[in-house]
Amino acid sequence: MKTVTRMDNEPIEVPRGLRNVVVTETALSDVRGHEGFYHYRQYSATDLARSCSVEQVWQLLLDGRLPDPAEGTAFAGQVRRSMALPPAVQRLLPVLARDNGHDILAALRGLLAFQGTAAGLRPLYDLPEDQRRTDLVSLASTVPAAVAALHRLRNGRDPVPPRSDLGYVANYLYMLSGSEPEPERVDALNTYLVAAMDHGFNASTFTARVIASTGADAASCLVGALGALSGPLHGGAPSRALEALDEIGGADRIDAWITEQVAAGKRIMGFGHPVYRTEDPRSRLLKEVAQRFGGPRVDFAVKVEERIPQLLEELKPGRQLHTNLEFYAAVVMELCGLDRSLFTPTFAAARVLGWTANVLEQTTDPKIIRPAARYVGPEAPQPLP
Amino acid sequence: MKTVTRMDNEPIEVPRGLRNVVVTETALSDVRGHEGFYHYRQYSATDLARSCSVEQVWQLLLDGRLPDPAEGTAFAGQVRRSMALPPAVQRLLPVLARDNGHDILAALRGLLAFQGTAAGLRPLYDLPEDQRRTDLVSLASTVPAAVAALHRLRNGRDPVPPRSDLGYVANYLYMLSGSEPEPERVDALNTYLVAAMDHGFNASTFTARVIASTGADAASCLVGALGALSGPLHGGAPSRALEALDEIGGADRIDAWITEQVAAGKRIMGFGHPVYRTEDPRSRLLKEVAQRFGGPRVDFAVKVEERIPQLLEELKPGRQLHTNLEFYAAVVMELCGLDRSLFTPTFAAARVLGWTANVLEQTTDPKIIRPAARYVGPEAPQPLP
Repeated sequence: MKTVTRMDNEPIEVPRGLRNVVVTETALSDVRGHEGFYHYRQYSATDLARSCSVEQVWQLLLDGRLPDPAEGTAFAGQVRRSMALPPAVQRLLPVLARDNGHDILAALRGLLAFQGTAAGLRPLYDLPEDQRRTDLVSLASTVPAAVAALHRLRNGRDPVPPRSDLGYVANYLYMLSGSEPEPERVDALNTYLVAAMDHGFNASTFTARVIASTGADAASCLVGALGALSGPLHGGAPSRALEALDEIGGADRIDAWITEQVAAGKRIMGFGHPVYRTEDPRSRLLKEVAQRFGGPRVDFAVKVEERIPQLLEELKPGRQLHTNLEFYAAVVMELCGLDRSLFTPTFAAARVLGWTANVLEQTTDPKIIRPAARYVGPEAPQPLP
Repeated sequence: MKTVTRMDNEPIEVPRGLRNVVVTETALSDVRGHEGFYHYRQYSATDLARSCSVEQVWQLLLDGRLPDPAEGTAFAGQVRRSMALPPAVQRLLPVLARDNGHDILAALRGLLAFQGTAAGLRPLYDLPEDQRRTDLVSLASTVPAAVAALHRLRNGRDPVPPRSDLGYVANYLYMLSGSEPEPERVDALNTYLVAAMDHGFNASTFTARVIASTGADAASCLVGALGALSGPLHGGAPSRALEALDEIGGADRIDAWITEQVAAGKRIMGFGHPVYRTEDPRSRLLKEVAQRFGGPRVDFAVKVEERIPQLLEELKPGRQLHTNLEFYAAVVMELCGLDRSLFTPTFAAARVLGWTANVLEQTTDPKIIRPAARYVGPEAPQPLP
């Protein structure tokens, strides 16, 4: 392999896919996979997910500390006032909702991009920090309304506008169903959304930060990240875990199904994570949430979750595969009454909040992210033929 | 600064902004800034810009070799057939063209995102290579029509559909003006677009490749890259060079203007590049193109371009600042009859072709780009307050 001298210095070789390469500093969150925990700022993310609202944790990520009651009320009000889709965007909904083989995530991406344009958003580097924050919060706050409206239109129902008295999570469930959501479901979904809001570096968060590093506007950053999130290698498709449960069918089929999967060399959806070598703390948290609901579906899921690692240990010793976020996230979302087509968009409605904080943090240090590539093509230049 | 152990291995420290960090291999293009040249595949990019059409060079970037006549005709036909905006996208134009303080680039981003959704594009990793190529080529081929339509609508004129007998460059000029473009302008713009199609790694090309690395669809990659391109730190805003010419006003004001700029610590737009330490070969090429047109505007630009480095050498010895792409690109685009508001969108209409080739190349090696961040926040976890 030829190494070509580039720019002023020698090229710096790093592992493929930038694995473990420190691309930026962050004070937002950290994943300690070996130790089996992750945290947002100074607090355990699972503690936060158990006892704080999405808005409070979003504020923690944006501002570095949990709000006092007055700050919390002010921010929750800002979010509520930003939840409704602007009229120009509403007019676009029927076209974007039309099913052309694309999913709601793709429609959401088109919608957010359009919304950024229609709002005339300015490049982030041209704005003072409080306006950058406002642009990001306003845009992200519309995601639940956008997802709910797209889902309803796809199913032949009119969109339901947000209620001015409901927060991010309750309004999402309300706009989906059109009726007052049960508190148990609001709590459960709140826990999931907080747990999914941020999770160290991943391709979508990184995309948001690369775009932010050029100083582009809020919509450019969030739309780019949504694009990365939609890639099949990104993860964040919890519906696959339910498909696995469906395929298994019943508790008596667990061993046979796993054996078939392993023999066919297939990945077991809902199991394994590139970061955790212990149990994923998000999985443990959402298992608790599911068990609060209870019922045969949850019992079956727990049986599968407990049996799979045992059997995998017999079939492939030393693998130590645990459930990841997707497994119980899927179970919890089903218990909250969400259709499977909403699982990934709901994940996006959580992760977009983390992206806003990442973008805001990235813009405090205006330095473009601009790596190099190694040229490995034919010797050049040669004369034209 | 604290270093936290992440994932399986120690974090790998690299320069800020990933400068010189080799993030991928490429056989597409290379910039040898020290030697003062750049090439696409095995050919000098400036040679290509002098003698090949945009379509031919696009094919070279996509496929690795210049087309034979039959292949060239087939590809040019494919591009021509893809140039018109789909009806659903046309209906959206008036809303996106409305001026809310945003520029055409932001509208183009919204349009392409919507177009990807409306077309029901599939994730690239789910497609065979020829379909990936078709998706990318089809989407990028609509950029001239989108830019031209948005520009005309903003100026109170109806969009002009592409002609089935004109190629990428001639159709762009035709759709802007509504009349047959002069061959001299088509040639000049062709040269600029080929020269601007790709230029090693930069934040937008990198963004396109990060999103592609997740396997997302063609629109996700190109829209993300457009977002990065729109950032003020990215560059690609040649209109600033004309603003400098306007500010100077006349040849007798050059020295005074420069002295003022240097005294005020301002950047001289159109001069300097992070990669080239010699004259930018793209600048030399476009100077030739401008001089073919001739006239007092070109003479003035040449005087400015020749005087600025001399004077800077007196004022700040050792700087060796040469004109970059933007300077003569702006002059050439003005000579081609393009409004300044079209300069950056026209640059995008060139660069998007390079992005398609980068995305296609990235997807041949399905490995997600997923770096790490160093946590520098407060010690965690701490109990919740």
